[in-house]
Amino acid sequence: MRILVVNPNTSESMTRAIGETARRAASPGTEILAVQPLYGPEAIDCAMESHLSAVAVMDRVLTFGEPYDAVVMAGFGEHGREGVQEIVDVPVLDIAECSAHVAQLIGRSYSVVTTLPRSVAAIEDRLRLAGLADRCASVRSCGLSTLDVDRDPAAAMEAIVAEAARAVREDRAEVICLGCGGMAGLDEAITARLGVPVVDGVAAAVRLAEALVGLGLSTSKVCTYAPPDPKEITGWPLSRHLGAEVR
Amino acid sequence: MRILVVNPNTSESMTRAIGETARRAASPGTEILAVQPLYGPEAIDCAMESHLSAVAVMDRVLTFGEPYDAVVMAGFGEHGREGVQEIVDVPVLDIAECSAHVAQLIGRSYSVVTTLPRSVAAIEDRLRLAGLADRCASVRSCGLSTLDVDRDPAAAMEAIVAEAARAVREDRAEVICLGCGGMAGLDEAITARLGVPVVDGVAAAVRLAEALVGLGLSTSKVCTYAPPDPKEITGWPLSRHLGAEVR
Amino acid sequence: MRILVVNPNTSESMTRAIGETARRAASPGTEILAVQPLYGPEAIDCAMESHLSAVAVMDRVLTFGEPYDAVVMAGFGEHGREGVQEIVDVPVLDIAECSAHVAQLIGRSYSVVTTLPRSVAAIEDRLRLAGLADRCASVRSCGLSTLDVDRDPAAAMEAIVAEAARAVREDRAEVICLGCGGMAGLDEAITARLGVPVVDGVAAAVRLAEALVGLGLSTSKVCTYAPPDPKEITGWPLSRHLGAEVR
Amino acid sequence: MRILVVNPNTSESMTRAIGETARRAASPGTEILAVQPLYGPEAIDCAMESHLSAVAVMDRVLTFGEPYDAVVMAGFGEHGREGVQEIVDVPVLDIAECSAHVAQLIGRSYSVVTTLPRSVAAIEDRLRLAGLADRCASVRSCGLSTLDVDRDPAAAMEAIVAEAARAVREDRAEVICLGCGGMAGLDEAITARLGVPVVDGVAAAVRLAEALVGLGLSTSKVCTYAPPDPKEITGWPLSRHLGAEVR
Amino acid sequence: MRILVVNPNTSESMTRAIGETARRAASPGTEILAVQPLYGPEAIDCAMESHLSAVAVMDRVLTFGEPYDAVVMAGFGEHGREGVQEIVDVPVLDIAECSAHVAQLIGRSYSVVTTLPRSVAAIEDRLRLAGLADRCASVRSCGLSTLDVDRDPAAAMEAIVAEAARAVREDRAEVICLGCGGMAGLDEAITARLGVPVVDGVAAAVRLAEALVGLGLSTSKVCTYAPPDPKEITGWPLSRHLGAEVR
Amino acid sequence: MRILVVNPNTSESMTRAIGETARRAASPGTEILAVQPLYGPEAIDCAMESHLSAVAVMDRVLTFGEPYDAVVMAGFGEHGREGVQEIVDVPVLDIAECSAHVAQLIGRSYSVVTTLPRSVAAIEDRLRLAGLADRCASVRSCGLSTLDVDRDPAAAMEAIVAEAARAVREDRAEVICLGCGGMAGLDEAITARLGVPVVDGVAAAVRLAEALVGLGLSTSKVCTYAPPDPKEITGWPLSRHLGAEVR
Repeated sequence: MRILVVNPNTSESMTRAIGETARRAASPGTEILAVQPLYGPEAIDCAMESHLSAVAVMDRVLTFGEPYDAVVMAGFGEHGREGVQEIVDVPVLDIAECSAHVAQLIGRSYSVVTTLPRSVAAIEDRLRLAGLADRCASVRSCGLSTLDVDRDPAAAMEAIVAEAARAVREDRAEVICLGCGGMAGLDEAITARLGVPVVDGVAAAVRLAEALVGLGLSTSKVCTYAPPDPKEITGWPLSRHLGAEVR
Repeated sequence: MRILVVNPNTSESMTRAIGETARRAASPGTEILAVQPLYGPEAIDCAMESHLSAVAVMDRVLTFGEPYDAVVMAGFGEHGREGVQEIVDVPVLDIAECSAHVAQLIGRSYSVVTTLPRSVAAIEDRLRLAGLADRCASVRSCGLSTLDVDRDPAAAMEAIVAEAARAVREDRAEVICLGCGGMAGLDEAITARLGVPVVDGVAAAVRLAEALVGLGLSTSKVCTYAPPDPKEITGWPLSRHLGAEVR
Repeated sequence: MRILVVNPNTSESMTRAIGETARRAASPGTEILAVQPLYGPEAIDCAMESHLSAVAVMDRVLTFGEPYDAVVMAGFGEHGREGVQEIVDVPVLDIAECSAHVAQLIGRSYSVVTTLPRSVAAIEDRLRLAGLADRCASVRSCGLSTLDVDRDPAAAMEAIVAEAARAVREDRAEVICLGCGGMAGLDEAITARLGVPVVDGVAAAVRLAEALVGLGLSTSKVCTYAPPDPKEITGWPLSRHLGAEVR
Repeated sequence: MRILVVNPNTSESMTRAIGETARRAASPGTEILAVQPLYGPEAIDCAMESHLSAVAVMDRVLTFGEPYDAVVMAGFGEHGREGVQEIVDVPVLDIAECSAHVAQLIGRSYSVVTTLPRSVAAIEDRLRLAGLADRCASVRSCGLSTLDVDRDPAAAMEAIVAEAARAVREDRAEVICLGCGGMAGLDEAITARLGVPVVDGVAAAVRLAEALVGLGLSTSKVCTYAPPDPKEITGWPLSRHLGAEVR
Repeated sequence: MRILVVNPNTSESMTRAIGETARRAASPGTEILAVQPLYGPEAIDCAMESHLSAVAVMDRVLTFGEPYDAVVMAGFGEHGREGVQEIVDVPVLDIAECSAHVAQLIGRSYSVVTTLPRSVAAIEDRLRLAGLADRCASVRSCGLSTLDVDRDPAAAMEAIVAEAARAVREDRAEVICLGCGGMAGLDEAITARLGVPVVDGVAAAVRLAEALVGLGLSTSKVCTYAPPDPKEITGWPLSRHLGAEVR
Repeated sequence: MRILVVNPNTSESMTRAIGETARRAASPGTEILAVQPLYGPEAIDCAMESHLSAVAVMDRVLTFGEPYDAVVMAGFGEHGREGVQEIVDVPVLDIAECSAHVAQLIGRSYSVVTTLPRSVAAIEDRLRLAGLADRCASVRSCGLSTLDVDRDPAAAMEAIVAEAARAVREDRAEVICLGCGGMAGLDEAITARLGVPVVDGVAAAVRLAEALVGLGLSTSKVCTYAPPDPKEITGWPLSRHLGAEVR
């Protein structure tokens, strides 16, 4: 089984880290193909960047060129999952949604600890549209940007543990979801300190992708996620039309 | 990996059928242990029977005696998942919830087709408490009891397909969940006729159990599902105190 | 009029206390029959115990043997009301639900003060399924188990008043519901100290039972709560099959 | 015990009918005082009339002059319950809310059958603000105005039965609430024909009023329903300032 | 364009202040007609006063006698908008609703800062019935009555700013709505201190009234807000029947 | 006042039609600048196209080069409003949201009639995230694509009227919103035939934009919609990097 794991931003170091997490989480026999878009932000902390990433990810998937059995979108709360579901036939999984699915399977309520306060809304929106908000006790911010988390993992660790502890104590969360791809690897440390299960979205998505492929199930194409009708789309996929300076 | 799959009723033929479905769905290397309670109804179509089953299933799990890595509760909408979560350390999965999780991963909305009209409420309640009702387009009844489905699978097939077609057309369902353990094996036939993905709960639960075990995650024990405090419980587990006529 | 009041646990002293509260609350001419199950936990603080109690209570009601006009289930948030509604023809009232009904009749919002933190979820679930969660400002725990409340009423009093005061101040509760059968009798003391009406669930249920009987109304049997279809149920009712050591 | 039952409109024949229903429903020893406002519409079918009625009812209650133990507001969905709760110390019950409370105690879901389509919104609003909408399967209109129901009870009967049957069949209602004071007395006939319990709001409110008085509980005055602060209110109560032609 | 702005209470100084705010907010060419009822409370802080105001405002509008293109109801959370919508053909706008509409257009979430704690419920109810509660982060009280705000604007300013700051910090509000007609004019000062946009309800309603008139749209009369059917209404409009001492 | 109205697709004829509708709706003195993206689909009927449009619209707005006072995004349910709110300082209005705001101001409930069944989900999502779903009676599809509506307006008219009539009759809608930019101009014809107010989203958005500008209010920048932090964004804005064949 081959799973295409798409880092939503253009940071190569983050693609490597996400790929490693995915590989650690995968079953024996599952191959992880970790890629990143050809254009777009190096990290995503707002709606503008998230929208751009949605298109850059669709572009990357559409032009990938090799076979795969499932797509994992490794952005936590980023836009675009529905679009990718329309353009491929295999299952498409979003790490924010997969975190919530796994959290709900193992606890009565969960909280997400994410990066900046401004990302809280995006994550709440994604969970709500996915029908997974009801058991979400809270989405909390640790106050650091995605790049901050990347740069100083030790400080991030402290900030995230502090916020997770508040979620358990004040919001009655029984499971913590790490709300940022860049937090991969912190799960065990947090569980050790707080005694609550911690869900890493990339790992969760890889295992749920395997489950769907194993069940022989993929996106329903009867209505909302049917393939787009043929139509003139100027300049699409964008990467084919971009000049040399972007590549 | 060993998964304990518990048929909620005392029908041995149903245990066998559920076990076979579970084995077909499992990954290579996963062993399925299919069991049934020592007392209780031969089929479950109402709250009284569902409550009795909850206890009989807990009793069976508590006295099982061999190791396993996860428990799958094979009743669609039956009570008791929370109780089993408290008394074992491994992940516990309910097929109604797992159906909904898988359905939400592959479609915008799903409908459940169950047996009798009176079971609709129980399934709605379970989905709602599990935080999975938001993307549920409808829970529909095919008008047949669990035993009817067991006795005349061909007639059941027609009734279920008819109701699933209404769910797609009138309720805008994009995925169908088979709302009864006894419907196992109908999924492919329905997909062939309606063009929508069909989720079998037992299969879904087995694959999600594998995913949780693979992730090294289990039920959060920090509050709601902590082990019961030691306490005098007269006659528990019940099977130890039951006379010979019940066995 | 005769009301069968069922203590959900096997503690005889709690049955006596519940019976006394019920008698104080009843109208002249109403006879209270206070009973307890023949097996099960001495107190109920988790889902496992609650599920077991549901069955033990159904068993007790089914084998009671004398006529009555209504059943009051004296567990706050315990499972099983729907099952009893199916097996008897008279009205069946749950004290958690009755507390909320009365609270909504006399205030804009109410809070429940219950025993342990782990019981909060069970009560929230029961109120939600009963359609009574919308005006619930909060379910709060006083941190003591049911047995603790029974053992040291004075300490319990302080803990409950403190939590009720927080509900009024922080959650804007305008009515307090005592969320445990064992808290009977504390209502007047709390009202005296906080100035808010306090609802005792057993008293509320007795008076609402009288109202339903007076109206000539009982459980609708058209669908969800119709009597169970005849069916082979191994070992049911359980008490008939239990050996001497349980009684 | 004395219960003040206030017909929200100025029709004396309706006051008599409501009073008779209330007396039939009351326990022995309960005295019913049935009154009507001194000004306002002869029947209420829209928001303008409902608002006017709210004031006319408050005016009537404020100037009533004799003692009573509870107030029943006999308008189905009319405005004003909160206002009366502020100005009296005894419990105040609205028949729409009491219908829903009783319906929820005896069934999983209920529908209201009311008069004109335009009244559906008012009833939905009242149930929603009272926190009782969650188990409401539907509010349906029989297409007749309040005065039509009063003038031709036989035709009204057919129209109401037809709509109630649709509620049971299409909306899965398990209890029917009669959504208009003028429908009093139809409950038994409808139950006989449809097999579902039917709740008459006036009867329900009288029995719930008795229950609250028996429990020694009344409206919480800690915040929302505290007595109005003293303040200059020009012309209030209005009836004291109205000219002879109005009386 | 002429907009009839109705102060819901009988305080002339408040009518003048509301009129001035409306004029400042209006486009060139829009004429503001600021009026007040002929009877009722000098300020509105509870449901009783709000209900009375609803009728007094309807009475005032019905007997106004001059043409206008839209009605603005200048009470924040007061009853009565639906009644006025039935009796006039032009658009009718409520300042609480208009505040929320404007707030949602410019921010992800908003909080209302109102006067007394007891008014919180009324505002929550109005927003909820208007379908505007979903993005409401909180309704907070500054602890002062409407008359207090009128009497000591400087103290009110401090209390309102403090509460608005809490809404931003604790409830994640991104826009503040001033929840009382008497707070007109504080918006700029608060924006200057907190950096969040502040919406004045009167100003918002005037501009939205202009927008509706410009679009040629008015209240739908197909069902709920159709004109009242002709019917005997004793003493209506009330002002025609009131004695000399009231005028 | 200058309003930048952005057609979300690359069809020049649609840009012209939208511009004309905007001009007809605008107040005297308002200048309409109607533009379209430099790349992307000629019409938008699915999530993939909608995501692409979101980026193309942001790109177009970012590189526009002339001053304006507000942005109107003329896609009904398309993605991207939040992104544009972050990158400009002036108010940003989405026509789907503005339709709902206006509909709620003039009726108790509204329905949207859109193009293809697959667009229903996108519109429901946008209304839900905007907090405007509560009074939405239904989103209905007329079965025609955006291009079909453009090609055969007479046939579209019949299909839209038929669906609007169903919304009024079956869903109790009291206002109809035209759910596609290409339906501009049909509003008067539909009102004439159905007697319900019809809201054109472009017209609504233009007038609400004028209202916000008049109020001196714009997007709150305190958290969610703050300007993006400076960051390396490869190839952005995309149009600057696209080859000649795209322009």
